Amino acid sequence: MSLTSATPLECATAAKSASHHLATLSVAARNDALTAIHDSLVASKDAILAANAEDMALARQAAADGQLSASLVSRLDLGKPGKWEDMLKGVLDVRALADPLGVVTMRTRLDEGLVLERLTCPIGVLLVIFEARPEVVANIAALALKSGNAAILKGGKESTHSFVAIAEAISRGLQGASPALAGAVQLVTTRDVIPQLLALDGLVDLVIPRGGNELVRFVKANTKIPVLGHADGLCTVYLEASADPSMARDVVVDAKTSYPAACNSAETLLVEEAALDTSFPGVAAALAAKGVTLRCDARTKAAVLRGAPDAAVADQVEDAADVDFDTEHLALVLAVKAVAGLDEAVAHINAHGSHHTDAILTADEERAETFMAAVDSAGVYWNASTRMADGMRYGFGTEVGISTNKIHARGPVGLEGLTIYKYKVRGTGHVSAVYGEGEGKKRFLHESMPL
Amino acid sequence: MSLTSATPLECATAAKSASHHLATLSVAARNDALTAIHDSLVASKDAILAANAEDMALARQAAADGQLSASLVSRLDLGKPGKWEDMLKGVLDVRALADPLGVVTMRTRLDEGLVLERLTCPIGVLLVIFEARPEVVANIAALALKSGNAAILKGGKESTHSFVAIAEAISRGLQGASPALAGAVQLVTTRDVIPQLLALDGLVDLVIPRGGNELVRFVKANTKIPVLGHADGLCTVYLEASADPSMARDVVVDAKTSYPAACNSAETLLVEEAALDTSFPGVAAALAAKGVTLRCDARTKAAVLRGAPDAAVADQVEDAADVDFDTEHLALVLAVKAVAGLDEAVAHINAHGSHHTDAILTADEERAETFMAAVDSAGVYWNASTRMADGMRYGFGTEVGISTNKIHARGPVGLEGLTIYKYKVRGTGHVSAVYGEGEGKKRFLHESMPL
Repeated sequence: MSLTSATPLECATAAKSASHHLATLSVAARNDALTAIHDSLVASKDAILAANAEDMALARQAAADGQLSASLVSRLDLGKPGKWEDMLKGVLDVRALADPLGVVTMRTRLDEGLVLERLTCPIGVLLVIFEARPEVVANIAALALKSGNAAILKGGKESTHSFVAIAEAISRGLQGASPALAGAVQLVTTRDVIPQLLALDGLVDLVIPRGGNELVRFVKANTKIPVLGHADGLCTVYLEASADPSMARDVVVDAKTSYPAACNSAETLLVEEAALDTSFPGVAAALAAKGVTLRCDARTKAAVLRGAPDAAVADQVEDAADVDFDTEHLALVLAVKAVAGLDEAVAHINAHGSHHTDAILTADEERAETFMAAVDSAGVYWNASTRMADGMRYGFGTEVGISTNKIHARGPVGLEGLTIYKYKVRGTGHVSAVYGEGEGKKRFLHESMPL
Repeated sequence: MSLTSATPLECATAAKSASHHLATLSVAARNDALTAIHDSLVASKDAILAANAEDMALARQAAADGQLSASLVSRLDLGKPGKWEDMLKGVLDVRALADPLGVVTMRTRLDEGLVLERLTCPIGVLLVIFEARPEVVANIAALALKSGNAAILKGGKESTHSFVAIAEAISRGLQGASPALAGAVQLVTTRDVIPQLLALDGLVDLVIPRGGNELVRFVKANTKIPVLGHADGLCTVYLEASADPSMARDVVVDAKTSYPAACNSAETLLVEEAALDTSFPGVAAALAAKGVTLRCDARTKAAVLRGAPDAAVADQVEDAADVDFDTEHLALVLAVKAVAGLDEAVAHINAHGSHHTDAILTADEERAETFMAAVDSAGVYWNASTRMADGMRYGFGTEVGISTNKIHARGPVGLEGLTIYKYKVRGTGHVSAVYGEGEGKKRFLHESMPL
């Protein structure tokens, strides 16, 4: 299969056909396909690293011209110590995960000889759009195949040569494992085909945009296909006066500063009035010491200035504008606001947050539970940092993405999020017309059976 | 709350606010709300039946003018024996269902004192668009409240007076139960607000169009909000030669004729070549005897004519056009086609079906299992009628709708389909930065705990 000459329709049609084959494969056969990918990548190491060197040369030139950041250039480099081995290990790690398919979640005897079963199965064809890190192609291919899905992949243009070389190796591996899998993982290399793929709602079953919120918004606005992802990560920590001051300091500092560019970092701190002159100044000082700019409302600003141990803290305080409470700063900037109490905190979060992950710091269990019930977010935390919201940290073994959707999959999404279910009914000639309420009609048994 | 004067934005904003309150209610409080609705309907019986009489008078006039069918007029009549009582019983039946919320589906000890829990919770705000049967308002209101969701409802215009009277009674009941629930169930009465509601993707979380495929297609094409439903029900039965002839006759007749207007009725019959002169003529004769027109390809037509017991059968045979295999006839018409075997049958169904419910009739278990794995439909049946695809028949106690979506909920959808989950993390000051792979870093425990 040519990776670049197929039209989007041909590409999606081939993926759909491969997906129907994938759906019938045992976990052993899917694992064999992952082994084949792994081995083909190993065999293609020189070609892939040569392709990556081409990307790196272009990227270094672009960086020298001021068009790319040094940190992005570094992320493109497959030649960095351990990077190649990590990519290969990633494929084997996915192979080792528990099979997400065929899990029976309901079994009901409808009548003698008539059994209903609900079991997990693949979604079908995934369209995954992602950033420029070259190893992501191998990772997503592995996740898709493990979950029995075909995938169409589009990565950031800075790694095009690497993507093509890796995707060709994957295709060779799959072709060797089974000709019916040739179309199971396909790469598209030009951005102009994305709108065409987004129009193929009869063939593509789910779009996963992994990138900035501009990409996610574009995808959501331009397709009828369901979209899994999050546009924003506007996470909030609500500090109650009852929280242990040192615990509060540690958690807020971690939530804001351990990786400010991450979607699960805190962007807003709400402070219970009663904490303004108790634990809050210590939290503010710790944040300031880490270089965090505090965009404060009038009351929290006054409290910081009253309680600041030195002028260096005051230097980090700015006046908050309304927009700060609706902004994902992704930097060492935190919007800070005083609230009367729990109700106002919850209302603020539900109105201004992005329904990603929000935390309450309190010693009061009852209020913590109310907060976790009332805040409408994928993750609701009590006395823990929002930065815990991550598929690896949750123990999923992988992370397909983080979802702020209200249906299907929410929060960090593991392999399970790439599955749906189907109902199997096994009968011995059962017909519907004999069942009913009236005289002479049969009743269903609806007897729950062991899973 | 006025039912008719609010703008769509006000309506959705009030629903969102009520949904946040609903999410915090215990099952006892939600059941109390259902009791309040029930009692308020009882107290409003005269007003509701008077409103329904207005609708009926207009409907009878429209029927007399040839603008409405008699069967639709009959469905509008709340005064029919048992109809009123059934509506009230429906609310209490939903109240009696198991609570779909707070079901813990994952519990993991991430570290000492740090527990991750995944549990079901409401989706938020539902927009439900449905046909003109007046009792549906009470049914959907009950389902929404039981599952902790707010709902905006738009019903068919022929029952507007009844809908308004029922919705007013529901709102009075909810207001009495708790003022915070006043906006939990809202009716909109004019079609022009639907596009405006479909644009409110920040407030409405799920759209459920219950109606013809024209409505479903319109909704899907005009919103970024997820849509739960099915546009088509193009179900297929595949008849293998090994199937018991009398069983095959019964199942195919039930699948086609027991309720031809239903989405789970068969629209296509695929016949294994080897069955053309064995069981197929008997099936065809039984269908013809029930008044079914058989739109046959050349081979199945010849087989019917060869095997027909009398001329009456032949009279029911017509030549199939290609379009017949892509058409949901919803009438006593069946498209019939010969296939070489299982692979061709599966390929035909995956290409021409609507991924709703499809059945294989065979004595061969292995081929039945292959069919059920390979057919990409919400329901895959072995030796049973496609007409079994129904929430009540599956034992869900209710049916919100039938979904052919590939994410979230598929097949007949019960209360569970109106829920999503959230992750709760309870810690004692845990921060992310201390965990990792390097020296001196902590490891997560990822210890599965009892549910």
